[in-house]
Amino acid sequence: MPASELTIGFDADDTLWHNEVYFERVHERYRELLAHYHEAATVDRTLFATEMRNLPLYGYGAKGFMLSAIETAVELTNGKISAEEIRQLIVLGHGMLAHPVELLDGVAETLAELAGTYRLLVITKGDLHHQERKLARSGIAAHFRQVEIVSEKDEGTYAALWRRHGIDARRFLMVGNSLKSDIVPVLALGGAGVHVPYHLTWAAERVEKVPEGGANFFQIKTLRELPAVVRAWAAGRA
Amino acid sequence: MPASELTIGFDADDTLWHNEVYFERVHERYRELLAHYHEAATVDRTLFATEMRNLPLYGYGAKGFMLSAIETAVELTNGKISAEEIRQLIVLGHGMLAHPVELLDGVAETLAELAGTYRLLVITKGDLHHQERKLARSGIAAHFRQVEIVSEKDEGTYAALWRRHGIDARRFLMVGNSLKSDIVPVLALGGAGVHVPYHLTWAAERVEKVPEGGANFFQIKTLRELPAVVRAWAAGRA
Repeated sequence: MPASELTIGFDADDTLWHNEVYFERVHERYRELLAHYHEAATVDRTLFATEMRNLPLYGYGAKGFMLSAIETAVELTNGKISAEEIRQLIVLGHGMLAHPVELLDGVAETLAELAGTYRLLVITKGDLHHQERKLARSGIAAHFRQVEIVSEKDEGTYAALWRRHGIDARRFLMVGNSLKSDIVPVLALGGAGVHVPYHLTWAAERVEKVPEGGANFFQIKTLRELPAVVRAWAAGRA
Repeated sequence: MPASELTIGFDADDTLWHNEVYFERVHERYRELLAHYHEAATVDRTLFATEMRNLPLYGYGAKGFMLSAIETAVELTNGKISAEEIRQLIVLGHGMLAHPVELLDGVAETLAELAGTYRLLVITKGDLHHQERKLARSGIAAHFRQVEIVSEKDEGTYAALWRRHGIDARRFLMVGNSLKSDIVPVLALGGAGVHVPYHLTWAAERVEKVPEGGANFFQIKTLRELPAVVRAWAAGRA
């Protein structure tokens, strides 16, 4: 790989394909299931607290979510939840893991256009097995030179990844829907970031403040706008 | 990295540190918990069947095991298991994820001795987050040039990994407790394998037949014997 090559990293969930929308559907079913015990706000708040408490142990991903949901259901019902309801939670989780991979608008065309000129990487956190399965079924895997599934996306992760791939921060652009995971740490290290908001954001990924990235920070509405941003960015690095 | 460098890959669970022994303890508690519903053999058989059925969805690791154990408990008790018992299963699972990392005999000394001369890698499957946490707490992470956590250890995985790291099969030696995951695919691709049996083997990792690896296949009792094997192997590759 020539050192001068420009690299574009892509987040996966809610950047390349829909994800949070499936979690949201499961949340809805979960609230319904517990509706005769508690109101929705209590269910949501308690589940989120359980998820955050278990995060150091479980990490990100659907399996940890399912386990936290079962634990919360036992807790919220004072042990009155039935085995049949637990079984329904497990079935819900299976659905979450097996849902079809539905690409976001413009993803396939944009990747096909960029792959000829730039080194494209997937950089995603979450469950290794689940993310690999989604990528395998996505139909876009061939566009990526490498897939990096990591347990956290912070400055340390990006720095280690760049070292490993011989990437210069100034020649790296990250594209993703999460300001916290995809943009803020990359800007802090001197890279560039393109924020593509998704209409839903998991509470743990929310940040209060849009970062000040100056000339290194871009916001677009869909991946269809990415090639133009990339061209502008690349022109400054020729 | 010079192309001539010799690389040694190490499996992690039950090769570097104890793992199956913790699963076995959880199995014991699990059998006790279900003892008033079914005898141990039925519990074991049904749990294993659930695990194998869910493997394509969950992949390897403790969280998938926990979910399969909860699902099996609901099934085996015809829905009579109580929420309190489900809660106990979750607590059991937490214990499994949080257990201390206990290195196997000779591991620390052997790695320290080999790291100066060879490129050492960890190549392990399982849960990304859990494996990273274990490695971080192991005290031996600094000996490894790279950690590869993969979702399956078959010929395709090794071939892709070697391509990525510029490793020649003839200059690669894999060390592990699983003939199926650590030895058979590596020998098939022309690499070398050192089998270090652990006293427990998960049913899904058992193979009937010890491979015929000729001069590329070694068996040792503990990692203390590894440096001598490595020297003999390396002498043939000078």
